[in-house]
Amino acid sequence: MIMVSRFISKLKKSSTTNNSKLILALDISCELKKNKKSEWVNAKKQLYLRAETILNKIGDKVAAVKINNQLILPLGLYEYIPDLINLVSTWNLPVIADIKINDVGHTNEWIAKHFLNIGFDALIANPFVGWAGGLDKVFETARKYNSGVILLVYMSHPGASEGFNQIVINSQTNVQKPQFLLFAEKANKWGADGVIVGATSPQIIKTVRNVLNKNILILSPGVGVQGGEGAEAIRSGASYIIVGRSVFDSSDPSLTVNQINESLNQVQ
Amino acid sequence: MIMVSRFISKLKKSSTTNNSKLILALDISCELKKNKKSEWVNAKKQLYLRAETILNKIGDKVAAVKINNQLILPLGLYEYIPDLINLVSTWNLPVIADIKINDVGHTNEWIAKHFLNIGFDALIANPFVGWAGGLDKVFETARKYNSGVILLVYMSHPGASEGFNQIVINSQTNVQKPQFLLFAEKANKWGADGVIVGATSPQIIKTVRNVLNKNILILSPGVGVQGGEGAEAIRSGASYIIVGRSVFDSSDPSLTVNQINESLNQVQ
Repeated sequence: MIMVSRFISKLKKSSTTNNSKLILALDISCELKKNKKSEWVNAKKQLYLRAETILNKIGDKVAAVKINNQLILPLGLYEYIPDLINLVSTWNLPVIADIKINDVGHTNEWIAKHFLNIGFDALIANPFVGWAGGLDKVFETARKYNSGVILLVYMSHPGASEGFNQIVINSQTNVQKPQFLLFAEKANKWGADGVIVGATSPQIIKTVRNVLNKNILILSPGVGVQGGEGAEAIRSGASYIIVGRSVFDSSDPSLTVNQINESLNQVQ
Repeated sequence: MIMVSRFISKLKKSSTTNNSKLILALDISCELKKNKKSEWVNAKKQLYLRAETILNKIGDKVAAVKINNQLILPLGLYEYIPDLINLVSTWNLPVIADIKINDVGHTNEWIAKHFLNIGFDALIANPFVGWAGGLDKVFETARKYNSGVILLVYMSHPGASEGFNQIVINSQTNVQKPQFLLFAEKANKWGADGVIVGATSPQIIKTVRNVLNKNILILSPGVGVQGGEGAEAIRSGASYIIVGRSVFDSSDPSLTVNQINESLNQVQ
């Protein structure tokens, strides 16, 4: 039996309970303020309330919540974000910190500790940084917290192909491989809990699924506004679909989530 | 005559005024608190005061200040960070946001706008993300603010070699090149203001300097605790040296900065 992290078991449980393969990307944010600081007191409160309104509508219909810098930076890691984590826990949903960690070890360790300590269940990191004095600290810290690490294997924007699809040649063996396959192999070697592969590239989801250890999840963003199709990504091997703007910019987020859930659940 | 951004002219001016090629990495931070939120009110204030104490000692002896997530996340982008930017402006030093941007376009654009709007002069980004729907938005936004973009070309930690030194083969031309050279070429093509090359790899600084457009600066971190040697990096072609822990953990930061300045200024 393969041991999985608390993050994976929590995610599978909430997915079953809510009958959903949808991860909400709560990438809401706010406009710039002319007045650099004072106007922000109210803006932060309004932003938090907007997040609360959305969660109240669909918290019982999704599998997890992903939060990124557009929400973390204005709300403040030690201001409103702990309240938000607390709010999400109402529905027992795992919360993923989409901060695409890509720094040196001591900074990565700081980031990992501080995010996991306030209750995030998993961290997204960029494997391009490498292991020694890089992501080693992220994995070590996540293991201490029994939390998850999710690696970027293929992002969802058009320019992702420049790096993630470039061909890398091993100077010892002369074997050529696309970058994303090397990242998938690192996910296996490093014991990642999940990988990100954009829904905009279903063929790459298939290829990655074939090389990835069975217990590693594929999370697939880029559905909706960015052009990816959720059911197609699930058919290709994605475990969960990450959707943001199509849900929270919808006139009826609850209905939209119901429709997405239905389309994903129809996939055999 | 080559047009340079306000960031570059500001940096050159402060470097001349303070007779320094040292960029202070103000990577100070604070320990975890057991109590997740309430204890942070005081911790944030103490952290800000510590930053103030350090800057008061060496603000007139360095060329610029670099701030990273270890300080931005606890202080809060819209809480103490605007005060800190304001404080640094006392010495007319440019402030670099070391947030290693590596996200999709709409998130990158949000990050760039919000950091530059509160007064940061330059942003560090990871070229691995690619251009279309990736870093295009960072460059566009920085140009609007007449600010700088600095690309990671070779990081300073041991594992950096995994990605930054891998050999990439161009599938059209079959030409093989190390990743960091491709990144240096992208810095030229995209019109970056500076690049990061770790002081731990002086030979790579030389190679990068040879391919990089003359107006693009090389900023070199990893001096001191990480093992790099500042004068050697300058001799190899670095424009500025980034130093953190060796300065702010010193029992006499002012003396330490004087010594570093002297050693860097001796290089012909």
